[in-house]
Amino acid sequence: MSKQRVLTPQDEDFPAWYQDILNKAELADNGPVRGTMVIRPYGFALWERMQAAVNQRIVDAGAENAYFPLFIPQSYLNRESEHVEGFSPELAVITMGGGRELAEPVIVRPTSETIINAYMSKWIQSYRDLPFLINQWANVVRWEMRPRIFLRTTEFLWQEGHTAHVSRQEAREYAAKILHEVYQDFMESVLGIPVLIGYKTASERFPGAINSMSLEAMMRDAKALQMGTSHELGQGFATMFNTTYLDAEGNQEYVWQTSWGVSSRMVGGLIMAHGDDLGMVVPPRLAPIQVVVIAVRDDGAVVEACHSLANEMVAVGLRVKVDDKTGTGFGRRCTNWELKGVPIRIEIGPRDLEQQQTTLITRMTGEKQTVSLAAAPQHLVTLLEDIQDNMLAAAISWRDSKIVDVVNLAEAREASQVGFARIAWEMLGTQGEVALAEDAVTVRCLQRADGSLPEDIDEPNLLAICAKSY
Amino acid sequence: MSKQRVLTPQDEDFPAWYQDILNKAELADNGPVRGTMVIRPYGFALWERMQAAVNQRIVDAGAENAYFPLFIPQSYLNRESEHVEGFSPELAVITMGGGRELAEPVIVRPTSETIINAYMSKWIQSYRDLPFLINQWANVVRWEMRPRIFLRTTEFLWQEGHTAHVSRQEAREYAAKILHEVYQDFMESVLGIPVLIGYKTASERFPGAINSMSLEAMMRDAKALQMGTSHELGQGFATMFNTTYLDAEGNQEYVWQTSWGVSSRMVGGLIMAHGDDLGMVVPPRLAPIQVVVIAVRDDGAVVEACHSLANEMVAVGLRVKVDDKTGTGFGRRCTNWELKGVPIRIEIGPRDLEQQQTTLITRMTGEKQTVSLAAAPQHLVTLLEDIQDNMLAAAISWRDSKIVDVVNLAEAREASQVGFARIAWEMLGTQGEVALAEDAVTVRCLQRADGSLPEDIDEPNLLAICAKSY
Repeated sequence: MSKQRVLTPQDEDFPAWYQDILNKAELADNGPVRGTMVIRPYGFALWERMQAAVNQRIVDAGAENAYFPLFIPQSYLNRESEHVEGFSPELAVITMGGGRELAEPVIVRPTSETIINAYMSKWIQSYRDLPFLINQWANVVRWEMRPRIFLRTTEFLWQEGHTAHVSRQEAREYAAKILHEVYQDFMESVLGIPVLIGYKTASERFPGAINSMSLEAMMRDAKALQMGTSHELGQGFATMFNTTYLDAEGNQEYVWQTSWGVSSRMVGGLIMAHGDDLGMVVPPRLAPIQVVVIAVRDDGAVVEACHSLANEMVAVGLRVKVDDKTGTGFGRRCTNWELKGVPIRIEIGPRDLEQQQTTLITRMTGEKQTVSLAAAPQHLVTLLEDIQDNMLAAAISWRDSKIVDVVNLAEAREASQVGFARIAWEMLGTQGEVALAEDAVTVRCLQRADGSLPEDIDEPNLLAICAKSY
Repeated sequence: MSKQRVLTPQDEDFPAWYQDILNKAELADNGPVRGTMVIRPYGFALWERMQAAVNQRIVDAGAENAYFPLFIPQSYLNRESEHVEGFSPELAVITMGGGRELAEPVIVRPTSETIINAYMSKWIQSYRDLPFLINQWANVVRWEMRPRIFLRTTEFLWQEGHTAHVSRQEAREYAAKILHEVYQDFMESVLGIPVLIGYKTASERFPGAINSMSLEAMMRDAKALQMGTSHELGQGFATMFNTTYLDAEGNQEYVWQTSWGVSSRMVGGLIMAHGDDLGMVVPPRLAPIQVVVIAVRDDGAVVEACHSLANEMVAVGLRVKVDDKTGTGFGRRCTNWELKGVPIRIEIGPRDLEQQQTTLITRMTGEKQTVSLAAAPQHLVTLLEDIQDNMLAAAISWRDSKIVDVVNLAEAREASQVGFARIAWEMLGTQGEVALAEDAVTVRCLQRADGSLPEDIDEPNLLAICAKSY
């Protein structure tokens, strides 16, 4: 089947390919204020399903949802010196409210550590109140000079978790639990995107944290995308906001804190980790539409058969859409569903109906199968599970083929142009990190040789993952 | 059982009672920036359940969720003269972004008609794209001079629906459908709050609308709370943003629009519509916790029995919490669950266990029942359904007892001090409306004698519902 080109091919111009998908799959538009975005219904449906899956894991990890104000007094940010220094260049500042100039300027939250500490310090009294585990789903604003939809936007949607604990050990364990059980599990088992985990170097740490951990994925252009972070905040914010508790012995102690977040940038990650020259490829567990049933022609019996098959599929738990808009050409409709990355397309025409069968096309591979109408629902349940597994496996093997072990700076620089370079951190060091930055290559994270999370950033024999990134 | 007073009694000082509940039931706090609020986990759980129930009804009504930017260029607002006039005094204005003064000031959205029209005008081309039905869940900001948590806050959470249609008739029918099938159904069947529906008078109309419909509930102090609104926007925004479509005959036409919203103020409505001097009373269908099982003493067998009963209740679909924090006194724990309005409290102590029975206390009535442990789960399912029905019935009969039919302005003024006054709109008129405003009484809505929605605001024989309000 000869295809008309609908997108700029990835190999020709990856950023143009990405922009084309955003438009043609009707995912998102630029907003009128620089760096903002409009998330269209299909893009938002992807985000809503991400939210639901992440939220369930957060609740399972014991945190409760709450909501803190969008507006933060400038003075709150100023209390933590690294924090204010890190965020100041990105702030949106409100100087007028209710028709008057404000006495103190108000900041639109870039993140909520400060305002949440102001309340934790009221709510937390005794060790019995700990651990204190809270999460919020919210919009945040960081003024963006080089915006790119979903990946870097002035306003983005995210969740931010904030917790307080009795000891550094407990806080670090909780931050690592979120990293593994919430984020890594979600990204690998739902998004089908494998992630490398490890510590950020000191220069890439969250402003105000004593340790940042991140999850790094490889996009189809072999660049890295930071998919999420989990931070140990130590006692810095607690000290500035006097967030203390009375321990069992009656001593007043500062809490140990964590914060952690994932954002709407994961939608960009989803597009770039799985997409191909025909459009998105959405993994079945995430897909708002798992199966689209296309009526080939405007024929009453055909349309009826489509709806009846769809109903049977819904009955076995699938998310299904019927496309009976036969006013639009069949080929164009197929192209549109390919663009949107629906895992399975089913075509039913008069001849199929006669033979009581249908054609299934798998988006990931383009493979076609003929299946009897009666057997289709159960067959699809299994097929979708297979696709989910295959997408993760394919992403792992492709990524691993692009990770190169190197032994010196020159090799690291070269390998980072076309994939991830993995090098002994003791070999690279902070000096090497600075040198790589000249080529826009960064240390994405530090991990053990087996890929696991180190106990400490000073642990010997750590490996640095170096790459260009979004 | 002699109770210590935990709240200011409603009859003594209703606003103080409300404020006490917010604090003691751990629902919300004031934010640091005037008029903002912090929604604590229990308050947010109520809102999350409201969101889920409203969202399901919106999806059933055919609208899709999307997300538009928080930031709107000042120039967008200026395009619709009534709209900008209505909202100007309440705007939060950003003048600094990314460390620089902005060339054009940016508004934090007070509502999104303007920015959504800017995109509808791109997306809508032909009559085939209509009706265009979109919804977003978002925070909005209206600078509030007399803030009150949940009821009037500078930032609040809401959903706003925005639709475009081919005719005024279709638009008005959709706006009415949302009013009845989404909002009224949710409020009555989930919140257990009866609502009066009708048209806003011209002076109370949404800025830019040609017709506003509202749902009005009576609080326990006999004041009105506007629980939600649905507007016909006519073609005003469409004209200003050039939101047009090509009809089947090839003519370029402006769309007819609607917008509609409910907000976090419904949490305030829930508190004030059902609460009593012991705290909140949450209807079972909404309740994040429907049943709390309280271990009377720190006794291994008792605690185990609590969890085992809770598991059986979860198995029949109930939302259950076990309170085994026996470090806190039993009486105090009971008071706390009463404050939070959990529909049913179950107490299990050693003697109950011996007799394989338990005591159930209904929050709404204070009624106690003794039930065998084995029969409890099924009994509770029925009991919760009865409570749901009883709460709505009680709210209706109480409200109706406070509605007085009156025939002149003096009577309307008097009756509005202690309830709702109902008077012929032709009798009251705009002049009467102005006169009532001197006593802070407003016309909440205009409806037919049978309580139904008029065809038109000029329909004869409409009744005006007059009341003090939040």
